[in-house]
Amino acid sequence: MKTVKVAIVGLGTIGTGVARLLLEQGDRLARQAGVRIELARIVDKDTTTVRDLDLPAGLLSDDLATITEDPEITTVVQLIGGLEPARTIMLKLLASGKDVVTANKALVAEHGPELFDSARQAGRSIAFEAAVAGGIPIIASMSECLAANQIESIHAILNGTSNFILTQMQQKGEAYEAVVAEAQRLGYAEADPTMDVDGSDAAQKLAILAHLGFGATVDWRAIPRVGIDTVNVSDMQYAEELGYNVKLLAVASREPEGLELHVSPTLVRDGMPLAEVRDAFNAIHVVGDAVGKVFFQGLGAGQMPTASAVVSDLIDTVVGRMAITFNTLQLWSSDREASVAVREPAEIPGRFYLRFNVKDNPGVLAEIAGILGWHKISISSVIQHETSDNADDAVPLVIMTHSAPEGSVAAAVKTIDELAGTYPGTIRMRVMD
Amino acid sequence: MKTVKVAIVGLGTIGTGVARLLLEQGDRLARQAGVRIELARIVDKDTTTVRDLDLPAGLLSDDLATITEDPEITTVVQLIGGLEPARTIMLKLLASGKDVVTANKALVAEHGPELFDSARQAGRSIAFEAAVAGGIPIIASMSECLAANQIESIHAILNGTSNFILTQMQQKGEAYEAVVAEAQRLGYAEADPTMDVDGSDAAQKLAILAHLGFGATVDWRAIPRVGIDTVNVSDMQYAEELGYNVKLLAVASREPEGLELHVSPTLVRDGMPLAEVRDAFNAIHVVGDAVGKVFFQGLGAGQMPTASAVVSDLIDTVVGRMAITFNTLQLWSSDREASVAVREPAEIPGRFYLRFNVKDNPGVLAEIAGILGWHKISISSVIQHETSDNADDAVPLVIMTHSAPEGSVAAAVKTIDELAGTYPGTIRMRVMD
Repeated sequence: MKTVKVAIVGLGTIGTGVARLLLEQGDRLARQAGVRIELARIVDKDTTTVRDLDLPAGLLSDDLATITEDPEITTVVQLIGGLEPARTIMLKLLASGKDVVTANKALVAEHGPELFDSARQAGRSIAFEAAVAGGIPIIASMSECLAANQIESIHAILNGTSNFILTQMQQKGEAYEAVVAEAQRLGYAEADPTMDVDGSDAAQKLAILAHLGFGATVDWRAIPRVGIDTVNVSDMQYAEELGYNVKLLAVASREPEGLELHVSPTLVRDGMPLAEVRDAFNAIHVVGDAVGKVFFQGLGAGQMPTASAVVSDLIDTVVGRMAITFNTLQLWSSDREASVAVREPAEIPGRFYLRFNVKDNPGVLAEIAGILGWHKISISSVIQHETSDNADDAVPLVIMTHSAPEGSVAAAVKTIDELAGTYPGTIRMRVMD
Repeated sequence: MKTVKVAIVGLGTIGTGVARLLLEQGDRLARQAGVRIELARIVDKDTTTVRDLDLPAGLLSDDLATITEDPEITTVVQLIGGLEPARTIMLKLLASGKDVVTANKALVAEHGPELFDSARQAGRSIAFEAAVAGGIPIIASMSECLAANQIESIHAILNGTSNFILTQMQQKGEAYEAVVAEAQRLGYAEADPTMDVDGSDAAQKLAILAHLGFGATVDWRAIPRVGIDTVNVSDMQYAEELGYNVKLLAVASREPEGLELHVSPTLVRDGMPLAEVRDAFNAIHVVGDAVGKVFFQGLGAGQMPTASAVVSDLIDTVVGRMAITFNTLQLWSSDREASVAVREPAEIPGRFYLRFNVKDNPGVLAEIAGILGWHKISISSVIQHETSDNADDAVPLVIMTHSAPEGSVAAAVKTIDELAGTYPGTIRMRVMD
C-alpha cells in the first residue's frame, strides 16, 4: 500500500486529537483511504507541552521550514487559531505546494478570497469541513450531496456554547450571568466568551454557509446579529407558554427580494427539530428545491468531533477527491458569477415576540395596539398575567405579531418605549414556525 | 465547458424526476459539476407514457442497445425496480463500460457481491446514495465524512411508509388497518404494502448500512424483524404514558460479543431526536468513536428527494470522485477482510416493553413477576389501570423490564402466555433510552 506523508501545524486541543487519530488508528484510516497516511512532522511554537499523546521522537519542531522544505509532505493540517500568524502560515504552506486542511472558520470567513485564490494559483486545495459545525458533515453535504438543489434556506444552531447556556437557563431557570459562570467553570465557555455569545462566531460560520449555499460573498460583520446576553429567563418561560423554545439561530434564506441573513435569539416552535437541540449540540436545517427539508445534528466543537472532520478532509485530500471538488466549486473566486444581492435587514419580514414593560395604568394596551396597527403590524397573541399585590407597577406584556418587516417593528417599539405608560427596554425576538 | 453524455434506464416516477433535473436545471448542474451533463438517451420498455415532462424528440427508446452501444454515453442512471430484469440490465451496462447510478436498494442488498465484483472487473463504479434514505446523504457520510471513525452504532427510521402510519395512529388514535387504508388512498402506501410494513424494506437498507459501517456482509433475510402490523394504538398510549414514542427502528450496534442487528417497533424515549421524527420522514442516528452522536433527518422517498440523491451521485461519477471512492472502499468484495461476526438474535440484550392480557384474578401479577424473576428479568416499571365495571375480564398489564437477553424475555413470555390467569398474545417491544 502506498504511503503519503502529512504534517500538522498547531498542536493545541484539536491538533492533539488529529495526531492521536493518525498515530493510533493508522490501519483503520488506511482501509478507508486506500493509502497509508504517515504523520511525518508536527510544528508548534511550543515544543515542550505535549498533552495526552506519545509522540515519536523528533516529530515535533518549532520550525515551519521542516514542513515547507520537505517535498515528501503533500498535505498539511493547519490548526492555528485566530487571523495571524494563521493567515501567513497558510499562505506559506500553499506557496510551498502543500494542500491544506483547516478548522479555522475565522480565517476562512475573513480571508477566503485571498486564501482560495492563492490555493488556485499554486494548484493546491483548501479543505475546511471542521470550520463549520465540527462533526456535522455540512460542508460536504452542501458542496456535493445537495449539488442537484437550489438551496432555499438554512436555519442553524452554529454555536455550541450559546446553545449550552440557553439550555441551562431553560432547565434551571437561572439567569444568564450565573449560567455563563458555570459554563466557564465546566469548560463549555471561554474566559472571554464574547465571540460565542454575541453571535459573531455564528455569523462567521453563516457567512461560509451562505457562500456555499447561495454563492453570496458577504462580510460576516455586515450580518445583523443579536447575542444571547439579551435573553431573559422570563422570556424563555413566556416562549414555553406560547409553545416555543428560544435558540440562537443563524438564518440564510433566499427570497425574491434578495438573500436574508441574520443571527439572533429566536423562538422556535416546539416539535420542529431545531427546537429540540439541547446542550452543546449544533444543528442545521436546510431546504433544497428538490430534496425538501434535511436536518443535521451533531457536536460542533470539542477535540475528537472536530478531529473527525479534519481527518475526513485529510483522507479526501490525499485520495484526490478534494482537488476535484475544490477545482469544480471555485469558492471565493473572482471568476464566479455575481453573488446574490443581500437584503436590507430592516426590510426582512418575520413574526416577532415582543415583551413590553408597562405601567399598570388604564389604556396602555390600547395605546400599544394602536401604535402597532399604525405600523401595519397585526397581533397574533397576547399574554398579560395577573400581577400579585406585591409587584411594583412594571407589568410584563407579551405580544406575538404576525409577519412584518423588522424595520417597522423596530420603529413601533421605539415609539412605544417612549410612551408615558411604558418603561424602555422592550425585548424583541424573531419567531420561527 | 466539457460535456458528458449520460442516460436513464427506467422512466418511472424517480426517472422522470431525474430527467426533469437534467433537462431543466442544466446550468445549475454544470456550475456544480464543472462539466455540462447532457441527457443523451432514455430507455424504458414503455415508450408511450411520459408524465409531466417535455422530452426532446428521439430521446426515448425501448432498446437498451442504444445505450450500451453508444460509447459516448459514460454514465447510466439505472432506475428499474425489483430484482429482474434490473440485475441483468445492470450487468449489461457495466459490461458495456458504463458507470452506474442506482436507487434500487433491493438489488444492492440482494446482489451486492455479484454487481460490485462485475463493476470492479469492468473498471467501472456503482453509486447508490438514493438506495438508502433518499434525500439524506447517509451513504456519502458513512463512506467519506465519518471515515475517521469506528462506527459504534446506527439507529434508524428507514421506512417512510411505516413512520407515516405510526404517526397517524398516534395522532388520530385510529387502528392500524384504518390508517393503512387511508395511507393507500393518499399514495403513502402501496396497494400491497407488505415489504414496507413488515420490516423487509428497512432490513434491506440496514444490511447496506451495516456493510458500510461495519464491513458486515449479511443476508437481509437473516436480520430479525418485526413489522408495525403488530402495533396497537393502546400500546402507543401506554408508551406515551411512560414517556416514549413507538417507531420502527432498524438497529446495528457493535458490541464485544458481535454485531447486533434487528428491525422492530421500538419505544424511543421522548426528547431523543429519533422520537420526534414524524410523518414520512426518515432519520438516522450514528455514533462514531471520534465524532460522537450525529443525527440526520430527511425525506426517504418521493420523486424529487430521491432524484436529488441520484443526481448528486451522477455529478460525483462524472467528475471522477465516485471512481476514487469506489476503488478505495472495495465494497462487497471477496478480497476484504473477514466481516464482523453477527450476534445470535436471542442473545441480544435490551430493555423490553411487555403488555400482558391478564384475567382479573388474585395472584396473577405475582405469578408473572415470579416467572420474569426466574428468567433473571428485573422489572423497571408497571402500569395497570383500574378497570371499569363494564370491562370483560381481560385486563392489560404493562411491564417495562431492565436489560435482559431477548431469548430470556421470549421464553418468559411463552411461559406466561400459557398461564391459566393470562390470555396468549403478549405484546413485546424493544426500548431505546
